[in-house]
Amino acid sequence: MVEAGEKSCVFTDVASALDDVFRRRRDVRRFRAATVDDAIVSQIIAATGLAPSVGLSEPTRLVRLATPSSRLAAVTNFELANARALAGFEGAKAELYTKLKLAGLADAPVVFAVFSEVETRKGSGLGSQTMPETLVYSSVCAVMLMWLAATARGLGLGWVSILDPDELTSAIDVPDDWVFIGCVCIGWPETYDLEPELERAGWESRMHGAVVIER
Amino acid sequence: MVEAGEKSCVFTDVASALDDVFRRRRDVRRFRAATVDDAIVSQIIAATGLAPSVGLSEPTRLVRLATPSSRLAAVTNFELANARALAGFEGAKAELYTKLKLAGLADAPVVFAVFSEVETRKGSGLGSQTMPETLVYSSVCAVMLMWLAATARGLGLGWVSILDPDELTSAIDVPDDWVFIGCVCIGWPETYDLEPELERAGWESRMHGAVVIER
Repeated sequence: MVEAGEKSCVFTDVASALDDVFRRRRDVRRFRAATVDDAIVSQIIAATGLAPSVGLSEPTRLVRLATPSSRLAAVTNFELANARALAGFEGAKAELYTKLKLAGLADAPVVFAVFSEVETRKGSGLGSQTMPETLVYSSVCAVMLMWLAATARGLGLGWVSILDPDELTSAIDVPDDWVFIGCVCIGWPETYDLEPELERAGWESRMHGAVVIER
Repeated sequence: MVEAGEKSCVFTDVASALDDVFRRRRDVRRFRAATVDDAIVSQIIAATGLAPSVGLSEPTRLVRLATPSSRLAAVTNFELANARALAGFEGAKAELYTKLKLAGLADAPVVFAVFSEVETRKGSGLGSQTMPETLVYSSVCAVMLMWLAATARGLGLGWVSILDPDELTSAIDVPDDWVFIGCVCIGWPETYDLEPELERAGWESRMHGAVVIER
C-alpha cells in the first residue's frame, strides 16, 4: 500500500497495485491551476481503446471542450441544473447541499463531454439486440478506465452529471443521435484523499461492497 | 510488461501495472472446470465497494446464481435470445455468428446476475436528478472494477447481454424495480489472450481509442 498522492512505487503483485488505484480513485472537483501535458492526456484517452464494448462496437466519442465558449456553455448548464437540483432538497439537507462543490468544470485544465454513438454500425449489433443500452454501458466502461488511468498518474477526474444533456448537446453542436454520458473534468487535484468528499461532508457514507443475495 | 496469464510480477510504476491489467482483460466465454475459492470471489465482490456511484448511492445488487434451476433459467434465456439474434444476420455474417461462443453461463463456476436498485434512497438523489440513468451507470462501473479485479487475479470474466431482462428478472425472483445490467460469468479461463475473441474470429477489429473531436 502507498500513501495517497504517491505516484510511483514497487508492487510485487498486480492485484495489490490495482486495488491501490481503486482505493485512491476519487470524484475530484477541486483542481490546481497547473496544466496537464498533452502526452498524459493522450495516455488517458488511449485507455478507452482497451475498454470492453459490446460486439467491439467502440461507440465512445470524446468532445474536448477546448474553447472558452464551449466551456462556458458547460459551466452555465451546470449552474442552472444545480440550482434546480437544490430546490429538490429541504432543511438541513438543502443547507448541506449548498456547501458542496459538485463540479470542477470552470477550473479543470481538461474537460471532455463524453458521448456514445449508439447508432454506430461497428460491431454489427452483436450483443446489443436484447439490451441496446449496452452501447451506452460500453461508454461508461471507457470512462471508468480513463478514471483509473488518471488516478494511477496522480491526476484527478470528476464525473459531472448535474447537467441538461439535450441543452449541452445542442450548445456544443454534436450530432443529435450521440447519447450524452457525462462531462469528465481532468487535472491535478488540490488534495489526495482516501475518503470521498461526500462522505467527509456528511452527505452519505459508504457500504463495503454490493449487496449479494443467492438464487 | 508481463506475459498474458502471468499473475505476479514486479512493477515499478503503478500506471504500468494498471495498463497491463487493461491489456490482459478479455470478455471470457470459455472456462476450465476448476472452482474459484470463496476468498477470491469475496475479493472480486469487494471491488464493488470501491466503485464510484452517483451521490454515493451504491445501487449495485449481485444475485449469485447458485442453484441448478437459476443457472438453467439463465442458460435457457440466453439460448432463446441468441437464436433470435442470429435471425437478424444474413449470409456470411450469420454463418460466422453461429460459430461464435458468446456466453459461458453453463460452464463458469461463478455466475452473478447484476442489478441496479435505481429506487434506492441512499445518496438522496444527489447527482441523478437531471440524469437518472447515472444509477445504472454506477452499477456498470462496479462491474468494470470486478472485471479488472478478476483479470488481475488470473481469472476471466464474461459479460453476457444476449438475454431477455424481464424474463430473467422474473425467473430468478428479484424485485421488479431492480434494473437488470447483465450476467457476469467468472472462472479460470481456458486460455489467456491479448486479442478479443471477436477480433480473432474476424467479426470486428479494434480502433486505438475513442474518437476525439474539439469544440
